Amino acid sequence: MADDDNTALAAALRHCATTVEQALDNLLPEVEGTEARLAEAMRYSTLGGGKRLRAFLVMESAALFAVSLTCAARVAASVEMLHAYSLIHDDLPRMDDDDLRRGKPTSHKRFDEATAILAGDALQCRAFEILGEPDTHSDPLARCELVVALGAAAGARGMAGGQMIDMLAEARAHTNPLAGPEVIHLQALKTGKLIQYSAEAGAILGRAPQSQRHQLAAYGRDLGAAFQIADDLLDAEGTAEEIGKAAGKDAAAGKATMVRILGLDMARTHAEMVAKEAASHLDGFGPGADHLRALAAYVVSRRS
Amino acid sequence: MADDDNTALAAALRHCATTVEQALDNLLPEVEGTEARLAEAMRYSTLGGGKRLRAFLVMESAALFAVSLTCAARVAASVEMLHAYSLIHDDLPRMDDDDLRRGKPTSHKRFDEATAILAGDALQCRAFEILGEPDTHSDPLARCELVVALGAAAGARGMAGGQMIDMLAEARAHTNPLAGPEVIHLQALKTGKLIQYSAEAGAILGRAPQSQRHQLAAYGRDLGAAFQIADDLLDAEGTAEEIGKAAGKDAAAGKATMVRILGLDMARTHAEMVAKEAASHLDGFGPGADHLRALAAYVVSRRS
Repeated sequence: MADDDNTALAAALRHCATTVEQALDNLLPEVEGTEARLAEAMRYSTLGGGKRLRAFLVMESAALFAVSLTCAARVAASVEMLHAYSLIHDDLPRMDDDDLRRGKPTSHKRFDEATAILAGDALQCRAFEILGEPDTHSDPLARCELVVALGAAAGARGMAGGQMIDMLAEARAHTNPLAGPEVIHLQALKTGKLIQYSAEAGAILGRAPQSQRHQLAAYGRDLGAAFQIADDLLDAEGTAEEIGKAAGKDAAAGKATMVRILGLDMARTHAEMVAKEAASHLDGFGPGADHLRALAAYVVSRRS
Repeated sequence: MADDDNTALAAALRHCATTVEQALDNLLPEVEGTEARLAEAMRYSTLGGGKRLRAFLVMESAALFAVSLTCAARVAASVEMLHAYSLIHDDLPRMDDDDLRRGKPTSHKRFDEATAILAGDALQCRAFEILGEPDTHSDPLARCELVVALGAAAGARGMAGGQMIDMLAEARAHTNPLAGPEVIHLQALKTGKLIQYSAEAGAILGRAPQSQRHQLAAYGRDLGAAFQIADDLLDAEGTAEEIGKAAGKDAAAGKATMVRILGLDMARTHAEMVAKEAASHLDGFGPGADHLRALAAYVVSRRS
């Protein structure tokens, strides 16, 4: 990727992060009243951090169809809340048992387990609620389609199902580890579906024809796969400082990753191929999709 | 309450339980594929038990406006999934730490904590997804209103917020227990809001005028308050066999209940008064609301 693309993408990512941060601040509950601790925990894990990859996909795909910034930012904030909930629950001691996330203590470390569980629960709830609210789109059918698409991405046949497979895989990691196709299925559910939804959300907001909606979904699906392998490469190669969480943890836990199956070099080659595949789904879109194209190259070249 | 009312109500409750059981079976994911364990845990905690009070409220309030049975049953199943999720998470060791629910082992006892957390997560997700689906109502605006109303009832300013207050209250129970108004607020959020939503849902499905929607919401709010006090009375007086969970546990934990504050007799009188108040909000409805009226009397007289 050319340096110019990188610079433009970096600027666009920063701009999006600022926009979604503001939307999150507006849409999260205020820290007040007897249940203030819950709002505080929701804000702690949602504000002030993260790449905002999912938000960026919503904003950029929505921009292809000239969707209003306000509407797109609400959907972007919603998916970031959903993502934050999943991280809080995944980090719990009985799940992946992580103490550090985005360079700061995880929710159950900063608060306690009960608060962390409830903060995750309330974030998922708020993510759906936002999608149903009139300000998200003037057409209630578009709002319903977002609810249904998020439900499919986050539920038993999506993210939650992927985490279930991951927990089961970890229990058998040292005796009967997952094979390649099983790892691909796991990751498609666990991280892929929500990233796919994020790219598709702009098409739903823009009332795009089905063909364009499918192209963006396919882009998101492949981008998610490339992103996950790159994430696993970073874990295998990176330092805790660079990635903001404990490094080398996956290998120690015998985690189901493509890096374990393919090795570092082949995994990197595979990720780059999948990222190219992702970008190819955007061929029907004009220069408006350049950020999305650059993003596909970026996710497999990033160092953090 | 006359015996006739009791018999008719009991028959109606049984009929509703059968209807919603069938809807839940249809709407829950099948136990198949690599993530089968998650679907199994979702079904374990949702099917085959419970009074189905919330489902009954949806079905009966919907019947006031001649809503199709299929639509009402979907919304009834959705709220029972939401309720089941809250029970699974509330029962976790770091929350209320219960081993028994509806006379059988709680989810984390039957499966494990990770599975229980995920099953709750996936049930909440599916509850919202169902509301957004076209089969729930022909008018997408009605579906959006259900999503938003459920979001308000279940989130940080509703059920999840109530559970947060409850956890904080338990930590200070023996040094600085909640006063009466705080207990009322806690219970209004923790159980009241979802029961209120259930009664209101029929009016949303029926595209009822705002005034009738508000009356049903007020009925649900007061019914929920009466129900909660009656539940606490059962805990204080009942046996484990009668109520299907460990009895006397609330008092042992110094739980924030109106029974602790008012004593048994005054709490019972108060519950009966609030139940009458609930029924009074139905004055504008005809004999179609007789089951709802009988229910208000039933919740404070039931023995299990």
